[in-house]
Amino acid sequence: MIKASVCTIGDEILIGQIIDTNTALISSKLNEAGIRISRKVSIGDDPATIKSFLKEELENNDIVITTGGLGPTGDDLTKQSLFELTGATAWLCSEEQAAVNREILHSRGLDTLMTNTAQAMYPDSGEVIVNRVGTAPILVFRLKSELFPNKPTLYAMPGVPHETATALTDVLDDIKHHFNLPSICHKSIMTYGMAESALEQRINPWVKTLDEDMHLAYLPNTLTGVKLRLSIYGAADRNEALSRIETRFAELHSLLGNIIYSDGESNLESVVGKLLAKRGETLSIAESCTGGEISHLITTVAGSSAYYLGSVTSYAIPVKEKLLSVKDDTILRNGVVSSAVAVEMAEGVRNLTGSTYSLATTGWADSYGDEHEPAGTVWIAVSGPAGSVSRRAVYHNDRKRNIERFAATALNMLRLYILGDI
Amino acid sequence: MIKASVCTIGDEILIGQIIDTNTALISSKLNEAGIRISRKVSIGDDPATIKSFLKEELENNDIVITTGGLGPTGDDLTKQSLFELTGATAWLCSEEQAAVNREILHSRGLDTLMTNTAQAMYPDSGEVIVNRVGTAPILVFRLKSELFPNKPTLYAMPGVPHETATALTDVLDDIKHHFNLPSICHKSIMTYGMAESALEQRINPWVKTLDEDMHLAYLPNTLTGVKLRLSIYGAADRNEALSRIETRFAELHSLLGNIIYSDGESNLESVVGKLLAKRGETLSIAESCTGGEISHLITTVAGSSAYYLGSVTSYAIPVKEKLLSVKDDTILRNGVVSSAVAVEMAEGVRNLTGSTYSLATTGWADSYGDEHEPAGTVWIAVSGPAGSVSRRAVYHNDRKRNIERFAATALNMLRLYILGDI
Repeated sequence: MIKASVCTIGDEILIGQIIDTNTALISSKLNEAGIRISRKVSIGDDPATIKSFLKEELENNDIVITTGGLGPTGDDLTKQSLFELTGATAWLCSEEQAAVNREILHSRGLDTLMTNTAQAMYPDSGEVIVNRVGTAPILVFRLKSELFPNKPTLYAMPGVPHETATALTDVLDDIKHHFNLPSICHKSIMTYGMAESALEQRINPWVKTLDEDMHLAYLPNTLTGVKLRLSIYGAADRNEALSRIETRFAELHSLLGNIIYSDGESNLESVVGKLLAKRGETLSIAESCTGGEISHLITTVAGSSAYYLGSVTSYAIPVKEKLLSVKDDTILRNGVVSSAVAVEMAEGVRNLTGSTYSLATTGWADSYGDEHEPAGTVWIAVSGPAGSVSRRAVYHNDRKRNIERFAATALNMLRLYILGDI
Repeated sequence: MIKASVCTIGDEILIGQIIDTNTALISSKLNEAGIRISRKVSIGDDPATIKSFLKEELENNDIVITTGGLGPTGDDLTKQSLFELTGATAWLCSEEQAAVNREILHSRGLDTLMTNTAQAMYPDSGEVIVNRVGTAPILVFRLKSELFPNKPTLYAMPGVPHETATALTDVLDDIKHHFNLPSICHKSIMTYGMAESALEQRINPWVKTLDEDMHLAYLPNTLTGVKLRLSIYGAADRNEALSRIETRFAELHSLLGNIIYSDGESNLESVVGKLLAKRGETLSIAESCTGGEISHLITTVAGSSAYYLGSVTSYAIPVKEKLLSVKDDTILRNGVVSSAVAVEMAEGVRNLTGSTYSLATTGWADSYGDEHEPAGTVWIAVSGPAGSVSRRAVYHNDRKRNIERFAATALNMLRLYILGDI
């Protein structure tokens, strides 16, 4: 199996100034391609460390991928270290990258500064994959056996997250072209609303019927649910393998029903968005404890303006009453975190916007509750052509995490309502 | 200088299934305490790897901190590996942790299951720091010179983020108690609205006047601005050192004025919240392109219900017109992304809720704009007792990142308005 190490270079990540999101993306894509990740490492901006560490990783892996340290400022010393480590003798200029850089700087109304021209330079021991969305090119070093007997390949990528994501597609293509990767086919489905252990119990008899070359992986995540990934190793015919997976997934669908929310890897907000767009229907939201998080999630999906009308965040009780027409009496009788208030909020925002569906939340995200409901409780309501329904959920995390879990649970409830399953 | 390595254990992080937020927190706190982070590493759930890797890290560091791998499920093999690595001879039970665990499970309406009782067990080669918010105790191994000549200490912490955060406080106390840390005093201030290079230029003459034992670090972050951290090394009297820093920061305040938003490490949403709470004033928000993100940020602050009334996310034009009273004609003449629309939105939501201040955004978060404004443009307006003002900003990131930057810029503009500086 091809072995890879994924490294971030730069003090910002080493000392915890910023959170590393790049390596999660890189390693999940490598993992899917059948490459084993040996480890992920963060090191600082110090040339001696960069060289000695990368040397060790190159000796022990077939592929080493680095992100970061390629910027134009003086403390990014990676490129010089790579020059020395890979036995380069001169700097070359990538004319193609230089052209991209001129265009990027021009579009931002900036002159082509010296430092940004220097960005297009690379050591003659390597090659360049053009960075289409930023000024630092991707560097590829296919190392010779005189330097590294195992002939590893080093990919140095920029560290700005959206540049890394774009670069990764090109790097994966290069890897597929140059390495003899195992024939491995995957497909994933996403589930929500059933814990890993319960899922395991439910589908265990089915797992036992899987062919010997098939492997099912459970990949749980608190916010997105359990991903089920079915893989076939060593398939001679890729299309045939994929169709065998499809057949198996059809069986899973009949076992799990609407627990499955995506044939693929879409998140809940995209799935809900696709449902609405397909039906030509619209959505509005009334949020209390989730404070805008559900609306934020819905609007991270490109194209959401086609079906999303808007929301009211009614943090204060007068806003609930005035804008959403929640009755004072309903709050007094049931408490503000209650089924009745959630339903009136959902109906209120639906009346206000005229949307097909509406979603509402009211809860205690913090470590305290009231005499009606304990901390961590949320009441969620959906309103639509089939009337209004509500559900209750309780979580035991901190304020921020509770808000995120409330939002995910609400989006799933909306999905089930639209499907007519609630 | 004391040297530390920070490690995450578990396939979830290694293969990119979840994003690691723990090690950023841990390493920033260690860094502040004057400990040098040699590297951060993620490894998988495999006992042989755990043992060989931790052995190497222990040999090369004074402190090794691990997170993860302490859960009750079968594939968390860290505890057994630690047992073997540290020369333990028997398992002990922490009665104190067992009592906490019974209480946690009881409060969630669960029986004390066998697996959760096993959570309180630990190898006799180590000690326990009780986990007050979860069932897996923190393990401390002060290793003897027979096993590791450099006598390192290993701290194994749980990996659930809010448990890690709580555990870290106790671990830092233990480190301060057992290690001879350098006398190092820090204080940070947060700035927003000036790039690192411009800041550097502005305060360079001041930096040159700093005493020899003082060091200023620039810690830039796209969303929170540039943090300036002033450190004094080797101070005999901690209080005196802190007061010297205070004196210097007073000078910085007169150089930078309202670019500084926090004496400390608060974020913009907390700073705005504190300002409002202190004045007994209130806030409402109207969001278009930011889709709920600003409201979400405001409500992540505990106690925000004291000053935050609520928001309207007006994604669709009819919602802008009907709820916020934005005039059709204003949109037709200026485009929906314009100063005039932002101002009408801000005034609309302020009229609706009766808040002291209101904040509004309208922009193009995506890769397209219109004939009035290019992609990445946002118009932000603030309305309040001093009237309405608007500002424009342009960013060049992807949709999600643009939304986050719009939100940060808007919060800073609100802060300046409340301070009377805009």
